[in-house]
Amino acid sequence: MEMSEAYPMNGGDGIHSYAKNSTLQREIIDVAKEVAKEAIIEKLDVGVLNSPKTFRIADLGCSVGPNTFAAVENIIEAVKSKYQSQGLNSKIPEFQVFFNDHVSNDFNLLFASLPQDKQYYAAGSPGSFYGRVFPEASLHIVHSSTSLHWLSGVPKEIVDKDSPAWNKGKVHYASSGDQVIQAYKAQYESDMEKFLQARAHEIVYGGLMLLILPFHPSGIHPSQSATNLSLDLIGYSLMDLAKKGRVNEEKVDSFNIPLYLTTPQEFEAVVESNGGFSIERMEILTRSEFINGIDGHQIATHWRAGMEGLIKKHFGEDIIDELFDLYAKKADEILIPAIVKSAEQQVSLFAVLKRKAN
Amino acid sequence: MEMSEAYPMNGGDGIHSYAKNSTLQREIIDVAKEVAKEAIIEKLDVGVLNSPKTFRIADLGCSVGPNTFAAVENIIEAVKSKYQSQGLNSKIPEFQVFFNDHVSNDFNLLFASLPQDKQYYAAGSPGSFYGRVFPEASLHIVHSSTSLHWLSGVPKEIVDKDSPAWNKGKVHYASSGDQVIQAYKAQYESDMEKFLQARAHEIVYGGLMLLILPFHPSGIHPSQSATNLSLDLIGYSLMDLAKKGRVNEEKVDSFNIPLYLTTPQEFEAVVESNGGFSIERMEILTRSEFINGIDGHQIATHWRAGMEGLIKKHFGEDIIDELFDLYAKKADEILIPAIVKSAEQQVSLFAVLKRKAN
Repeated sequence: MEMSEAYPMNGGDGIHSYAKNSTLQREIIDVAKEVAKEAIIEKLDVGVLNSPKTFRIADLGCSVGPNTFAAVENIIEAVKSKYQSQGLNSKIPEFQVFFNDHVSNDFNLLFASLPQDKQYYAAGSPGSFYGRVFPEASLHIVHSSTSLHWLSGVPKEIVDKDSPAWNKGKVHYASSGDQVIQAYKAQYESDMEKFLQARAHEIVYGGLMLLILPFHPSGIHPSQSATNLSLDLIGYSLMDLAKKGRVNEEKVDSFNIPLYLTTPQEFEAVVESNGGFSIERMEILTRSEFINGIDGHQIATHWRAGMEGLIKKHFGEDIIDELFDLYAKKADEILIPAIVKSAEQQVSLFAVLKRKAN
Repeated sequence: MEMSEAYPMNGGDGIHSYAKNSTLQREIIDVAKEVAKEAIIEKLDVGVLNSPKTFRIADLGCSVGPNTFAAVENIIEAVKSKYQSQGLNSKIPEFQVFFNDHVSNDFNLLFASLPQDKQYYAAGSPGSFYGRVFPEASLHIVHSSTSLHWLSGVPKEIVDKDSPAWNKGKVHYASSGDQVIQAYKAQYESDMEKFLQARAHEIVYGGLMLLILPFHPSGIHPSQSATNLSLDLIGYSLMDLAKKGRVNEEKVDSFNIPLYLTTPQEFEAVVESNGGFSIERMEILTRSEFINGIDGHQIATHWRAGMEGLIKKHFGEDIIDELFDLYAKKADEILIPAIVKSAEQQVSLFAVLKRKAN
């Protein structure tokens, strides 16, 4: 049933776990909190409020918490405010929340850490969000934060030696040739179409989708983004290890990171081309504080929590510590100055889509 | 949110795992298969067929599969037959299945082993079934097999030295005094009332509950049951270890197995006292074959998969192998002859309850 490759965040609660290394993602959810609340109160159809006995919410790409719990609580509070603002206090339904991620996600940890005082019935829904996960018209609000930049897989051409899009010596597209960039973009568009098609089935008419995703500003070359640079550094570090003979260079050639940073323009285009949703709101979330005092080690730890599994699978376990030590040094030398220089504070695209009535 | 103690079956897929040691439970599901199918076709209200866009099924106490998958497929086939028999082919809805068990159940394994060709959307719903797990009126069929004999906990009196129900030197009630038996029975009645109350909220009017549970024939003393004897043997084995100085005797005094085998009469009484359900069908499932050639080791392995966690928690890990070796010997000496003599083939009570319209 998996429609795509799974790249689970690190499970458990050890020092390299996602649970303990997702404060950057949490900060994004905190920044999004007020906007999300406002969007629900403004944009959720009153018709949607009147219909359900159970109000159903899904968080797609939830990983293991605690971020997902904070996001979901915020949504429920907003929905309740909306009922109250319409004088529908007595009609506030029960809430059911579906936590979705790949089958290989650590659902045991997720369930064990569910808040004691949660005001909803919780369920875990395993499966790739690039395919159907829920029944027809069964969801009222869908949320997804910092997940949709994960592609369903790397584009085939870029690991094909005979293709002009072969991505030799690199692990991402931003500093590669146009053909590599185009291959990634095409993969993104095809994945997003599958995502939107599936959600168009699952979300009731008038229901909302709140999407928060890392992005790249329209009109600027991908290589000019600090996030992309931070991914390139993984490639540079791997190539250093190849030069030292610690990994096979061909292994680096065949390794690529299935992440894509969309531009707001590209995002708008895929939503319009799908046709199932109207874009009700789209804005850039900025953050001002977290970069103060951040160092290479912290950035290395951040990526490690998200990518260790992917890298292990391809290169084995032995190089992991060395790789992220190297990464931390490069991040201090190259990335931190670039971040400070670019003052890149525009970190996430926040979009509110509404399911159109046919 | 946990309303009761959790006694998870052994996780993983090792030699002592529940996944590899639940063939007896599977046989019960196979025996129940035709009866369950028939019951759904006969008893499911046509009104229930007409209403839902999504037909929702829950399996309570599902553990880790594969048994739960077989049970659920059988239910879906029966529901589809019912639609077909009513000429409602075109109205067959999508199915959503909720797999429920304690938070500590191995949901990761459950999700990883979901059938590739399943015809439903799967979700895991963690939590004790002695409390609410699902929204109001959200389920159409609830199934639970070989789970409801697990109490929410051992009755408090039986571990109280000052109580007349103190269960010294034993781990179960069947061969204990009447006060111990009464304490277990009272616990069962209170738990079942909680169970039925929660389900009465969650199941739509006209919806069905299929319950399969080990039982004890009405009118016979509990000590006359081979299943009860098989539990007593755990106590005898522990007392042997106590005599050898391998475990503290007080530890055995304070250990009790939270299982209760209801009689059909007691079961009827709790359902009637609750009032939310009518008993549409109740019968004894028999099996004729599995006992041929069964030996003490197999019975030891069966209980180990279900009880290792419970025993470890109380006594530590060290005694487990020794305990079940002892158990296997006692089972060969005492239990197998008793099973053969009693020819106890009446193993499960199968009950179909229908949610009454208020």
